[in-house]
Amino acid sequence: MALDTLFYPKSVAVFGSAGEGKLANVLVNRLLDGGMDNVSIVNPKGLPVRAAKGYQSLLDVPGDVDMAVIAAPAKTVNGILEDCGKRGVKSAIIISSGFSEAGNKAGEEEIIATAKRHGIRFIGPNCAGMVCTQGNLVATLETAPPKGNIAIISQSGAVGGSFMALSAQFGVGISKFLSYGNGGDLTVLELLRYLKDDGDSKVIALYLESIPTGRKFMETVREVSAVKPVVIVKSGRSSSGQRAALSHTGSMAGADKVCDAALRQCGAIRVETLMDLFEICKAFAMMPAVKGRKLAIITNSGGPGVMTVDKAEEKGLLIPETSEEVKASLREYLPSFAGVRNPIDLTVEATGEQYGKAIEIALTERDCAIVLYIGTPYLKAMPVAEAVVAAARNSGKPVCAVMQVGVDIQESLIYLRDNGIPTYALGENAAAALATMANYEERRTAEGNIPCILDAGELGRAFKGGTNRLLEPEAMKLLGDNGITVPKFVFATNEEEAAKGAAKIGYPVVIKVVSPQIIHKSDCGGVKLNIENDEEAKSAFKHMREIAEGKDFRGVVIYPMLKMGREVIIGLTKDPTFGPLVAFGMGGVYTEVLKDITFRVAPIGKDEAGKMIREIKMYPLLRGVRGEAASDTEALAEMISQFSLLPLLYPDIQEADLNPVFLYERGACAADVRILGK
Amino acid sequence: MALDTLFYPKSVAVFGSAGEGKLANVLVNRLLDGGMDNVSIVNPKGLPVRAAKGYQSLLDVPGDVDMAVIAAPAKTVNGILEDCGKRGVKSAIIISSGFSEAGNKAGEEEIIATAKRHGIRFIGPNCAGMVCTQGNLVATLETAPPKGNIAIISQSGAVGGSFMALSAQFGVGISKFLSYGNGGDLTVLELLRYLKDDGDSKVIALYLESIPTGRKFMETVREVSAVKPVVIVKSGRSSSGQRAALSHTGSMAGADKVCDAALRQCGAIRVETLMDLFEICKAFAMMPAVKGRKLAIITNSGGPGVMTVDKAEEKGLLIPETSEEVKASLREYLPSFAGVRNPIDLTVEATGEQYGKAIEIALTERDCAIVLYIGTPYLKAMPVAEAVVAAARNSGKPVCAVMQVGVDIQESLIYLRDNGIPTYALGENAAAALATMANYEERRTAEGNIPCILDAGELGRAFKGGTNRLLEPEAMKLLGDNGITVPKFVFATNEEEAAKGAAKIGYPVVIKVVSPQIIHKSDCGGVKLNIENDEEAKSAFKHMREIAEGKDFRGVVIYPMLKMGREVIIGLTKDPTFGPLVAFGMGGVYTEVLKDITFRVAPIGKDEAGKMIREIKMYPLLRGVRGEAASDTEALAEMISQFSLLPLLYPDIQEADLNPVFLYERGACAADVRILGK
Repeated sequence: MALDTLFYPKSVAVFGSAGEGKLANVLVNRLLDGGMDNVSIVNPKGLPVRAAKGYQSLLDVPGDVDMAVIAAPAKTVNGILEDCGKRGVKSAIIISSGFSEAGNKAGEEEIIATAKRHGIRFIGPNCAGMVCTQGNLVATLETAPPKGNIAIISQSGAVGGSFMALSAQFGVGISKFLSYGNGGDLTVLELLRYLKDDGDSKVIALYLESIPTGRKFMETVREVSAVKPVVIVKSGRSSSGQRAALSHTGSMAGADKVCDAALRQCGAIRVETLMDLFEICKAFAMMPAVKGRKLAIITNSGGPGVMTVDKAEEKGLLIPETSEEVKASLREYLPSFAGVRNPIDLTVEATGEQYGKAIEIALTERDCAIVLYIGTPYLKAMPVAEAVVAAARNSGKPVCAVMQVGVDIQESLIYLRDNGIPTYALGENAAAALATMANYEERRTAEGNIPCILDAGELGRAFKGGTNRLLEPEAMKLLGDNGITVPKFVFATNEEEAAKGAAKIGYPVVIKVVSPQIIHKSDCGGVKLNIENDEEAKSAFKHMREIAEGKDFRGVVIYPMLKMGREVIIGLTKDPTFGPLVAFGMGGVYTEVLKDITFRVAPIGKDEAGKMIREIKMYPLLRGVRGEAASDTEALAEMISQFSLLPLLYPDIQEADLNPVFLYERGACAADVRILGK
Repeated sequence: MALDTLFYPKSVAVFGSAGEGKLANVLVNRLLDGGMDNVSIVNPKGLPVRAAKGYQSLLDVPGDVDMAVIAAPAKTVNGILEDCGKRGVKSAIIISSGFSEAGNKAGEEEIIATAKRHGIRFIGPNCAGMVCTQGNLVATLETAPPKGNIAIISQSGAVGGSFMALSAQFGVGISKFLSYGNGGDLTVLELLRYLKDDGDSKVIALYLESIPTGRKFMETVREVSAVKPVVIVKSGRSSSGQRAALSHTGSMAGADKVCDAALRQCGAIRVETLMDLFEICKAFAMMPAVKGRKLAIITNSGGPGVMTVDKAEEKGLLIPETSEEVKASLREYLPSFAGVRNPIDLTVEATGEQYGKAIEIALTERDCAIVLYIGTPYLKAMPVAEAVVAAARNSGKPVCAVMQVGVDIQESLIYLRDNGIPTYALGENAAAALATMANYEERRTAEGNIPCILDAGELGRAFKGGTNRLLEPEAMKLLGDNGITVPKFVFATNEEEAAKGAAKIGYPVVIKVVSPQIIHKSDCGGVKLNIENDEEAKSAFKHMREIAEGKDFRGVVIYPMLKMGREVIIGLTKDPTFGPLVAFGMGGVYTEVLKDITFRVAPIGKDEAGKMIREIKMYPLLRGVRGEAASDTEALAEMISQFSLLPLLYPDIQEADLNPVFLYERGACAADVRILGK
């Protein structure tokens, strides 16, 4: 693949001071200790470090050099890249700081141009380096992790380093670590695409403080998620958090609720903490897919079993009771006092063999299992660990284990891990991890549930409004032209037209004033209801003209009296990170007090719109409570989906509201509209 | 204190088989290894274990015996207790199972009676024993923990054992461990009261699967919580969890929402997992009280700082920006590129000295601090650890630390712990622990906020209803008699009375049918609104009599037409664990769809009722949104509090509803009522 020289170089030149404790010195040590044989170091004095010979210039280094690792002062980096170009070096890691993050944008642009000219791909500058365990490449100051199949990309070097420290501590291996720093050349998007096809990476962990290219990021994550899970910590959730992120990276973070919706929408798995990131990645890395929600819990003590059930149900797993048939087959192997329902409680006297049998038999009717072993400080856990490994292999299903207390508990935990069984400190953590895997698998295999995100450029049409707010009849026409149900309406510019229009609509009618200078029509008497005949229609027109006296009066718009329905709101807005968003809520106090509103990056299909409708808290109102008829959520989903296309069709639309939309047993109708342009 | 012989025996006799791996053998080993010098073992053959001499009967053991640890078969336990009585043994730990948990209630009653007769206090039977580290007593099969100041009481031996294993693993000490098993004599209540006054215990951890004596438990926890924190895991939250708890302990668990409210109400700190229990107890055990919400975060890298801020704000801590004055004094010690806002970011080059100064200076204007150190695998963390210890001591304020990555990270973590600084895996965990401590301190020091729970026995009055449902006028009278605002009303049994009554109320009035056999009055035309004069009143009476034809017709009740107000519901119900509960919600779809309803164990004072009102999701509606006037929440709190007294005043009341209560800008009125007796 295109980036292979970045990950699998055969020879590396490090740039920077060879002095003890200096970055380049440490990097050479890391590379040599990591198993890279061909390392040289370049610095003004040509000083060597261990087996790495020293040179004063890259041009002096004999043989091929595949990669440059640059930890030299910022002002020397461009020259180094020029030398790289001369020597045909194809990839670089620029650890040096002092570029755009420190206000030196010109310096960064210069090195980007130089690299481009020479066809050099690089990560950084201002990054913590990278690791490719399968390529024996440890080009970072952070902890060197064991070999494995979790890839991690981190916007923060420290967070990446902590993740690798966890990896080393718990023996759960890493395939690649990437710290992209300022992202001068290789961005998180390109790295993600590479990892998608990387056979050594089974799951991708991502730590982000900002998402600079919202929609492209979504599109990439959507593609990658279809192949392997992308687990993300996006920090800066709270107001102070956002302040801190701002001061740290100089980048703008979008509002967290929008970010959450966007990440969900493109199939990413968002978690909260570094530990969650590690625990969830460990599950994906070590277990086969969780193809269903039915969990078996096999334990030797009640309390931890109960706590595991609590968490598993909270997270959406099912703990089905054992069938009579399976109960009978369990009883063949288990003592009479063992519990065979679910949790299957083998009691404190359980042997390894009984654990093994219980796991295998329980998994004949469930999708995954958690094994809990809470021993005593004088009993051996290893027989149980061995039985878990064998039973998991035989079943072919995902199994994870919790082992607490035992004379050989540490060896047992290591034995499990080395034989592919992930271990967790608590059953609760194991349950959360399995639930996440079940959610991912369900989503990955569901058809067409991750909508394509259209590029505005493909569809852009001229926005028809002359002012920055469309007049009501213009806005209604635009809705109608785009397949959104609106009431019949007539625009009238004099009394005669008003009477004729009202008759055409059919009495009784509503008449509203139309003027770009009158926004809150009701407040100034600009809305007349229940107009019964031509006389009243003409009089209403006069009234409206009087109201608009001295203002830019354009006429009136005439509607039929609408039947009241359940009131909902559909809105459009633009997010600085993700662009056009569509919002849906119940309107009124529900939206205001409960914040019962949900977002998607626009546009979305009808299926996704249906999910929006179902995920608001007050959804049961639409489904019908207390014997009331259900509202037409099909028509509503259609309307949300159509409406969500507008900002793509008319890129000048900045904000829009249908408030209220009347929702009926059959159909839905946008009763009022507001569309704002640039 | 009364139970001191239980915790601090000078000599212990163990009962049971001396064979290798047998319980009594293990227990003797545990006791000897734990530092108990005077241990003997009693079994049929009189076999010894190590330094513990063997005897065939307790009567043969020379000298005083303070405590019996019984691991002999169930059927021998009563005889052993008789011998204990003869020898003046004052306390016992009965580990043997085979009593009420196995259906042998008679056996349990027998040993309870024998113990009582001899004045022997015991824990068990069917328990995992106990530990008193300060008394050198390790009378359990579970892990022996280091000495410290966390007391743990666990309904599950395995959970207690796991807790002690964590204690040993992380070097956070325990004062006492108590597994009370079936609670034949000493219950969790008596143990809690003992621990309240135990100078060695700074915080109490509690693992429960059921709360058998709900109100007494609350009263005890309330008393203990006023002195030291009680941190509780109550499992069996979910439906399957409740099933598992049932099969495990044979005890009935109340609904979790009620349990949650009850635990909060009595000042307990409820946490979810064993790990939370340990982490929160560690914080209380090692740090001084957190007397405010202002948190300082001192870090050397942005990412972990941001994630810590996210969690701290979510948990209700404040991350105030550094004042200009303090910024200036920070800048004296810190490099120019350090961030001085909050988090204070010392950057990767920070020295121990800079950490120390930053902590001390930051704490001059904050209540507590989290120190984050994310090093690299070749840098030393110890200078920072030393500085943290010194700065925390100088400040006298709570400080906890997170240290990740460094050549000497393990020693640094141990150094911190040994010098009283709790360490956490992540800043998020530290933030959650500090927030919990701040909440506890705020609650403990707030006056009168933990209401006294009255005993129904003190107040019980006869319930005035003859049937199991009070007639509406009876119920309204009962409300009125007890200080709850109801509409004026008249009960009329004939046409004349109806007309006279209506006139007395003042037209227009509402007339409702009164019959014990008509429950849904509106459905059968049993409610007439807007009655304008005597004529209509008489006619309404006739109509009601016709409706009730063939039923037990008692008459009609007459009300004025009430002004509509904001509708809320107040209810009473009985919980099997906690007894009478009072509920408050917004009524209608809010209660039905959103489950926007809150509970308290009754009775409660006006302050607590005010908290109920403020904690429902739709509270902003009552406070007034969109420029609407606020409702009279004072009057509402008064009504909830008065209503909550009813089940104590009239113990026959099983359930009651005021639905709706009309809430006005001034005042509140119970517009309809339903009271059910036994």
